[in-house]
Order: sequence, then C-alpha cells, then structure tokens
Amino acid sequence: MKENKSSMQKVNQFRDDRDWRQFHKEKDLAISISLEASELLELFQWKNSEEVVSNKLERIKEELADVLIYSYMLADNLDLDIDEIIAEKLVKNEAKYPVNKSKGKNEKYTEL
Amino acid sequence: MKENKSSMQKVNQFRDDRDWRQFHKEKDLAISISLEASELLELFQWKNSEEVVSNKLERIKEELADVLIYSYMLADNLDLDIDEIIAEKLVKNEAKYPVNKSKGKNEKYTEL
Amino acid sequence: MKENKSSMQKVNQFRDDRDWRQFHKEKDLAISISLEASELLELFQWKNSEEVVSNKLERIKEELADVLIYSYMLADNLDLDIDEIIAEKLVKNEAKYPVNKSKGKNEKYTEL
Amino acid sequence: MKENKSSMQKVNQFRDDRDWRQFHKEKDLAISISLEASELLELFQWKNSEEVVSNKLERIKEELADVLIYSYMLADNLDLDIDEIIAEKLVKNEAKYPVNKSKGKNEKYTEL
Repeated sequence: MKENKSSMQKVNQFRDDRDWRQFHKEKDLAISISLEASELLELFQWKNSEEVVSNKLERIKEELADVLIYSYMLADNLDLDIDEIIAEKLVKNEAKYPVNKSKGKNEKYTEL
Repeated sequence: MKENKSSMQKVNQFRDDRDWRQFHKEKDLAISISLEASELLELFQWKNSEEVVSNKLERIKEELADVLIYSYMLADNLDLDIDEIIAEKLVKNEAKYPVNKSKGKNEKYTEL
Repeated sequence: MKENKSSMQKVNQFRDDRDWRQFHKEKDLAISISLEASELLELFQWKNSEEVVSNKLERIKEELADVLIYSYMLADNLDLDIDEIIAEKLVKNEAKYPVNKSKGKNEKYTEL
Repeated sequence: MKENKSSMQKVNQFRDDRDWRQFHKEKDLAISISLEASELLELFQWKNSEEVVSNKLERIKEELADVLIYSYMLADNLDLDIDEIIAEKLVKNEAKYPVNKSKGKNEKYTEL
C-alpha cells in the first residue's frame, strides 16, 4: 500500500482485492456503519468518558476507523465526495442552528 | 466559510461558533455517531437498496454527512488524524482478512 | 430460580444478586438496549433473513433475549408496566396508521 | 381491542389488520428494533438520566414500547416464547457473570 494513496483509494483497494463489492449493497453498508458505531459506543458502556479515553484509546481509534471506512465505501458506491457532502450539510445545519439561537444550548433545533 | 478550509476545520468552526465543545464529551459524541448512523439506516427500513438509492439520494447524503461530522469531532477531541487511523485499521483488517482466505467470501473472520 | 417467578422478577433478581442497580442509570440502560439490538442485527450483516434464521436461531434467541432483558430493567427502573405501555403505544400507532390508509403499504406515516 | 388479550396477541392483531407480515422479514425486524432503540437513546443525547426521566417520561414510554413491539413481532415470526428465551439467557448470563466475580463490578465478563 503506497503512502501517497488517499484514504478513499486505500479503502477501495482493500475491498477490491477481496472482491467484496458484490456484498456491498448500500443497505448492508448502512447496516455496517451502524454496527461499527455501536462497537465504538460499547467501549463507553457503563463508563464515563474520562476512564474510557484514558484506558481504551487504541480501541477507540480502531472502531472510529471502522465507522469511517464503511462510510467511505458507501460514499464511493454512490459517487459522493466526502468533503462536498460535509460542506453542504454544515450549511444546512447552520440554518437549523443559527448561532444567536443555539450558542451554548444543548437543545434540538425543534426545541430551540 | 472559506472554500479552502479543510472539512475538519469547517466542522470545528461550526461547533466553536456555537460554543458546543462543552457538551461534546466523547461518550456523547459516540452516542451521536450511533444515532446518525441509525438515521441513515432508517432510510432503508422495509426497502431494498435500489429503491432507496433512486428515491432518497439527497437524504442519504445528509445522514452520511452527519455520521462523518460527528466522527470528525470525536477524532478532533482525541487529536486523532483521520487518514492515519484509517490506514492503521486497514493494516489490521488485512491481517484478519488475508486475501487468499477471504476473497469472494461474506463470512466474519472468526468463521473463515 | 423458581419456575413460577415472572420474567421481570427473574431479571431483577439477576441484577440485584450482583448489586448492579448502581450502574443502571437510565441513559446507560438505553445505551445497552441499543448495543444489544446491534448484536442482534449483526447476525444479519451481509446475509438475507432465510440463511440467518436457518443457521443462527440459537444466537437470535440470545440476542433478542438481551434486548428484552435490558428493556425490562429500564421499565422496572421507571416503574412502567410492560403490557400497559405496549397497549398504549398500539393505540397511538393505530391513529398514525389507520387501517384504510396503511393496509399493505410499507410507507412511513409521514409519507402515507 | 379487548382487555383480556395478551400483549403478543395485540401486537399481532395490529400487524395482521394492516397486512404487514409480508414486509416483516426477520432482517428488517432486526433493523427496526435497532432503529427504535436509537430513538429511545436519542432522548438522552447530550443529557443526563435525571433531566430526561423528569422531562420526557412519556416519550421514553413510547420508544421503549416500540422496541418491545418489534421484539415481540420477531419472536412471533420465529415461534419463540418471550419468557422462555429470557429465562434461558439469564441462565447463560449467570455462567458468564458468577455472583462472586461480578458483584458490584461494571466490567465485561471478558475483563473480569
């Protein structure tokens, strides 16, 4: 794996080397993103953030990476540009959460 | 928001403008990644991939972006480099799923 | 464990024998229900229903039971009667999904 | 809906009145259990247990009921007896978490 490849290229090479695109229906990729997010969350089960961050950083890195890897695969399946969809969603979130109404508040936009 | 900012910078500016880091304990960010992953998956509830991709691409983009945005926030909280943790995890996954054993197979590594 | 105890009594005895109520904050029980639901869903990752039901019925029973066990714990924490909350929710669902509009349709009530 | 029906009978009548069993593949029911568990968890997003229990008990009842309703549907699809699978799983959990090793501890059995 050459260092100068992008993350997206590495992710795609990983699945193409294994001929796995045939299994990667978008619904199943969405399931997998959700499952990996749960494995990340499981690290925090019954604990508070501080003890988990101190003791399980390596595991957090792995599970967060898995969330990202499946997210990149779904994006690639649908020809989506990661940076573009993030930028577009932030614009929408700015409309839902205007700074003057949401600053320092932990309420959902429907309750602001 | 200037175009030449990275996604990570845009994500951080969004939360800093709202003074939201105080709520962003890592456990709560892990919960939020999981919730956004479920909102993405909900688009596929009772449906198959084809009908959802045809009819709800805009919604997929939004929910996938939310997964990525919270993932970037958690990475930033922990000073993790996105590309680095992806590269490291792919190396681990390659050990768990050697090409010669996993090619064309949809089994978990524990069942290969 | 005597056979004539109710499921709720057995679940509570299990956690009280281990002095676990101290960890069972409602937020953490909600996390646990979600994690167990993901372990159930993981059985179906990359597969279709038929192959999983044929090959993994024992595992389905275990993971579904875990979802129920944590759900019962949360209900008990909040003094909720399982049968009552189910009956009440079905009444609400009937209003959202009137038979004449929803019969044979797999759409969300917001799209009916 | 007559009062003397069991919860399981009410749940089944609800779906049969709408002719929904055709959509209720086990994989999709597992997805739905997971989605409802996330809607329950979402009530606790960015909050602590106390504020949510005080302010959103009605919503907790609804989302917990939805988790149970889909769990009952999956059990019924597979001809599983709810009380039986709970009892069997508690026996397995007792072996994984013997009282003398797990009392007052919030560790996973793999770390006890």
